[in-house]
Amino acid sequence: MSSDVVDDRADALVADVFNRDCPSRPVLADITGKWGVLAMAALQEGPHRFNALRRRVEGVSEKMLSQTLHALERDGMVSRDVQTTIPPHVEYSLTPLGQQVATRLIGLIELLEGEFDQIKAAQAEYDQRS
Amino acid sequence: MSSDVVDDRADALVADVFNRDCPSRPVLADITGKWGVLAMAALQEGPHRFNALRRRVEGVSEKMLSQTLHALERDGMVSRDVQTTIPPHVEYSLTPLGQQVATRLIGLIELLEGEFDQIKAAQAEYDQRS
Repeated sequence: MSSDVVDDRADALVADVFNRDCPSRPVLADITGKWGVLAMAALQEGPHRFNALRRRVEGVSEKMLSQTLHALERDGMVSRDVQTTIPPHVEYSLTPLGQQVATRLIGLIELLEGEFDQIKAAQAEYDQRS
Repeated sequence: MSSDVVDDRADALVADVFNRDCPSRPVLADITGKWGVLAMAALQEGPHRFNALRRRVEGVSEKMLSQTLHALERDGMVSRDVQTTIPPHVEYSLTPLGQQVATRLIGLIELLEGEFDQIKAAQAEYDQRS
């Protein structure tokens, strides 16, 4: 039975994301892009203003963070709230869907961090072979 | 208590992946790169030879798939097995760690595919505003 479930999953993937025209591909790219992952993970800690988010995601340029946030907003992952203060402030937060996605991304990051000794060992062995 | 767990998670992330020098960043990039995600998801269905994998991951060039597989092999996600046939065949499969990572990636893909109507609606609304 459980192997049937796995097969169904595989079929579901065949039908979609592996297809070069699948519209989920660009969304996956936005979410899993270098800065998309980090912006989503940072926003999972709570809403951030642009500059706070930029400090949080070390190394991201203003332009790249701006592009990343626009793409994530367009995909319905991030909401952009303009606060009617003087001067007006813009705050970014995760939508409910963005929360679900961010939780999975953080699970992935935590797995990598938890297994990083194993990864470093594999890299060292590979580099020795090459 | 559960909020403490969330805080610990956040702290764990602060300490690592948000740091520009964190060595987990390039590994995350290999795994979540456009072709890395799809190659991992394809290999989660079972071992593939290079050309079968290239057919499976529609749209990937030979060069990009080759680069992707080398990076994933170096990170300990993919193992490259040379079969002593004549001519020798090279088969790619996921390592146990690669399986764990691929399972999480597929969970993410399935979430996106399952919520794609919501994503399309967000994109349509965003495009109308812009």
